[in-house]
Amino acid sequence: MPAHRLSLCKSHYIQWFETYTRRAIDKFEMIQTHEKVMVAVSGGKDSLALWHLLAGLGYETVGFYIELGIPDQGYSSNSQLKAQSFAEKIGQKLVIARVEEEMGAGIPEISKSTYRKTCSVCGLSKRHLMNRAAMDEGVDVLATGHNLDDETASLFGNMINWDIGYLGKQSPVLAENAVGLRKKIKPFCYFTEKQVAMYALLSGIDYLQQDCPHSVTATSLRYKEILNQMEHQSPGMKRRFFDRYLQNQGLFQAEQTQPELRPCARCGMPTSIEVCSYCKTVERAKCHSRESGNPVG
Amino acid sequence: MPAHRLSLCKSHYIQWFETYTRRAIDKFEMIQTHEKVMVAVSGGKDSLALWHLLAGLGYETVGFYIELGIPDQGYSSNSQLKAQSFAEKIGQKLVIARVEEEMGAGIPEISKSTYRKTCSVCGLSKRHLMNRAAMDEGVDVLATGHNLDDETASLFGNMINWDIGYLGKQSPVLAENAVGLRKKIKPFCYFTEKQVAMYALLSGIDYLQQDCPHSVTATSLRYKEILNQMEHQSPGMKRRFFDRYLQNQGLFQAEQTQPELRPCARCGMPTSIEVCSYCKTVERAKCHSRESGNPVG
Repeated sequence: MPAHRLSLCKSHYIQWFETYTRRAIDKFEMIQTHEKVMVAVSGGKDSLALWHLLAGLGYETVGFYIELGIPDQGYSSNSQLKAQSFAEKIGQKLVIARVEEEMGAGIPEISKSTYRKTCSVCGLSKRHLMNRAAMDEGVDVLATGHNLDDETASLFGNMINWDIGYLGKQSPVLAENAVGLRKKIKPFCYFTEKQVAMYALLSGIDYLQQDCPHSVTATSLRYKEILNQMEHQSPGMKRRFFDRYLQNQGLFQAEQTQPELRPCARCGMPTSIEVCSYCKTVERAKCHSRESGNPVG
Repeated sequence: MPAHRLSLCKSHYIQWFETYTRRAIDKFEMIQTHEKVMVAVSGGKDSLALWHLLAGLGYETVGFYIELGIPDQGYSSNSQLKAQSFAEKIGQKLVIARVEEEMGAGIPEISKSTYRKTCSVCGLSKRHLMNRAAMDEGVDVLATGHNLDDETASLFGNMINWDIGYLGKQSPVLAENAVGLRKKIKPFCYFTEKQVAMYALLSGIDYLQQDCPHSVTATSLRYKEILNQMEHQSPGMKRRFFDRYLQNQGLFQAEQTQPELRPCARCGMPTSIEVCSYCKTVERAKCHSRESGNPVG
């Protein structure tokens, strides 16, 4: 690991990785000892490794899987299988939500009928369903497997587009709020994708190696490639880029007023508008299916 | 030009390019009608095209060439020849400064003896010599041929490193100041390198096509490649990136206090410290040559 000037054997790597995660959890005050953690799992390496590690550290955890309704190359069924087998293996509860049941159709159809990008509809739905599941399960903290590659790609995109709103918000911890948004944490935010994959592999985790078939066109993949080039030429660049951003983030918050959140008029989840984007998307998809004569769901 | 959704013939391209430059000059209030402009020329396409265009628009101009003392591949002698022939062709005065005379040695030797990167010593020397020449010639405005590729590469680097000081300063116009810093302008800041090359070519300018032999290792070249990839995938990206930065630049200025400038104790040029970096570099180079027994110059 040139960025850390370290070469480690299997058992020391696992030990290093777990200590380093624990340090990030402490540094950003991600989890208090009494808090129960819901881990959002996709069946991939990042989320299963995170669940494995948090459960291993003794935190009270519950898994949450969303069946997105993506049939291409068996993506949804394969990923659900991996999530379920893993939950059984570690003997922890896995809560499952199905987008088709919740929203009337799978992500690809909703994307088509609402003319929104697939990744945008998917993100919107995940945020809504995750927060609702956390409320239903009485969980304090929502943990996701976002790694340094995810975080820097997102930061890079927001910077290239000078998206000041997002630049003021991105963080390894998003605090809970009074009207029902649960605390969100990213304990792997300091590990590269490679490092997490290595940990998952060495820990014997059976994860889905298949990428989401819709991710191939994602802009974030292009940004990841660029950042990988730069990391290769200057090891540790991603970590420095992310850390210095966090140190200077206040610059983007000064002029921003936080929108006041209130319960959505339809679903009761926190939103800054009358009816939340999730409910509007579901409504639009249903409208479209009535007009086209193909009932959604 | 996909970013502009335009295809133009030779004469309309030249017309478009000149109108667009004039618009940038007006937008950023670069030159007042009574002001005399010194154009920093290297012999390359950007600076000669700029001189050609400004003289053509009727501004009172004088060229300024710095012989950097870079003998590799005949770089310095070739570039001086191009600058001199061009000045003769358009019948304008060209002022020449020689780094070896001014600093006691050429840029590569000074870089070695002061343990500073070549591009850093070169930039430092150019800034000093350019400003001094402008003062000596009684010129109000210093114009450089920096294009959109230069500006976005520099911005990109400052962003990747979160160099807040530079992020607060970068601009198509740097105002003059009371203690002798001349106004600096970049009238080509909205053109890509390709667009300037095309203008130079179509205008029949005989410029040096050779790059500085030291530029091959410059980080800015890597940044330019990355930005070229992104521009290719999203035409107009460079311009949007630069414009949105300029709109949001205030964010980086809020917490900064401008250092007070005063005359350098040695050379009298404006500096924020007792003895300016240029004088310190010259002193260090001379010291090194005395110690090593190889008199500089």
